[in-house]
Amino acid sequence: MEIKIQKKVLEANESQAEKNRKYFKDNNVFVLNMMSSPGSGKTETLCKTLKMIMPKIRTGVIVGDICTRNDADRLEATGAQVVQINTDQFGGDCHLSANMIDKAARELDLDGLDLLIVENIGNLVCPAEFDIGENERAVVLSVTEGEDKPLKYPLMFQVADVAILNKIDLLPYLDCNAQDAVDNMKKVHPGMPVFPLSAKTEEGFIPWIKWLSACVGK
Amino acid sequence: MEIKIQKKVLEANESQAEKNRKYFKDNNVFVLNMMSSPGSGKTETLCKTLKMIMPKIRTGVIVGDICTRNDADRLEATGAQVVQINTDQFGGDCHLSANMIDKAARELDLDGLDLLIVENIGNLVCPAEFDIGENERAVVLSVTEGEDKPLKYPLMFQVADVAILNKIDLLPYLDCNAQDAVDNMKKVHPGMPVFPLSAKTEEGFIPWIKWLSACVGK
Repeated sequence: MEIKIQKKVLEANESQAEKNRKYFKDNNVFVLNMMSSPGSGKTETLCKTLKMIMPKIRTGVIVGDICTRNDADRLEATGAQVVQINTDQFGGDCHLSANMIDKAARELDLDGLDLLIVENIGNLVCPAEFDIGENERAVVLSVTEGEDKPLKYPLMFQVADVAILNKIDLLPYLDCNAQDAVDNMKKVHPGMPVFPLSAKTEEGFIPWIKWLSACVGK
Repeated sequence: MEIKIQKKVLEANESQAEKNRKYFKDNNVFVLNMMSSPGSGKTETLCKTLKMIMPKIRTGVIVGDICTRNDADRLEATGAQVVQINTDQFGGDCHLSANMIDKAARELDLDGLDLLIVENIGNLVCPAEFDIGENERAVVLSVTEGEDKPLKYPLMFQVADVAILNKIDLLPYLDCNAQDAVDNMKKVHPGMPVFPLSAKTEEGFIPWIKWLSACVGK
């Protein structure tokens, strides 16, 4: 019974996701879904990314959190269009759904956008199962989380199209081996591009910015 | 419909959790449910904890992961009884349920145990909603995750009875303010004991070990 209902929920989500994808395509907006554990540095990576690509790539952000507007406030300071979703009104949902994105996207001026980045809820498990109508999926892993996480949470790395290995500035103080982390990602998803970088020092951003710009065609 | 089924799932879980609690009580085993994001250092904290409390407190561990036996292998090296649960056989579940604990506990020799620690799936959201029949709940937050996480993921910190603020050895290299992290935990859960420590250097373990020993009455 539970499995049947879960299947129905996922099917309804998939159908709304396809509508979202068509809506974004009709408006010439490329959509990236950014996922990770809490505290891996999604928001800081995004803030630095926005600084580097705007105004050339006109970017909007939909940011999901269970509570608070902390991330939206940080992102808005970059000048980007930002919409915050708080899932505490949906029972503290552990992922963003296609319905939430549909509603939030209507608060954005899509004519003024080339790129929409969705910063998902901090969770390395559940968001991997919910298509929100994106074009590509990025996963962010922090070196502080340890190199074995791709093996322990493989689905997220399998559904991702690209990975960022963040906080490499901390490597001298950790036992984590960055090459092992990259190798483990490639083990669960052969051929996936992986960009080691530091959102704090901005080291390593150029290949990531090139990848993202190529997605948008700018 | 979905909400009704979710309620039914939670009710069934609650009923099994009560059975587990009675079973553990009848066997004089105190149960601690340990939860956190992926990579906050639950396993390393546990390895060091086991080293300090065993054999005085005879301890077993049930460890949950979606995939791999990595954590179980590390924990078994301490000499503790360890049972690994992999949720990939349950569709990659994002939390441990009371049913899984019931099954795993029957693989343990409870007569030889004073304390059972359950290391939950790395997820700061979903495990907070699932009672597994524990006596107390501990949440581990790493300073690398940032001081705002208790405000963004409040339920986990509200249901926890105790919190560990881990990886304090990294504070000199981070922008995180440890006192703000503690204050934010106390804001969402006034009066909750919080133990800042480093599983790597073993700094700060004494108050945590005292708290845990008092729980077991040893």
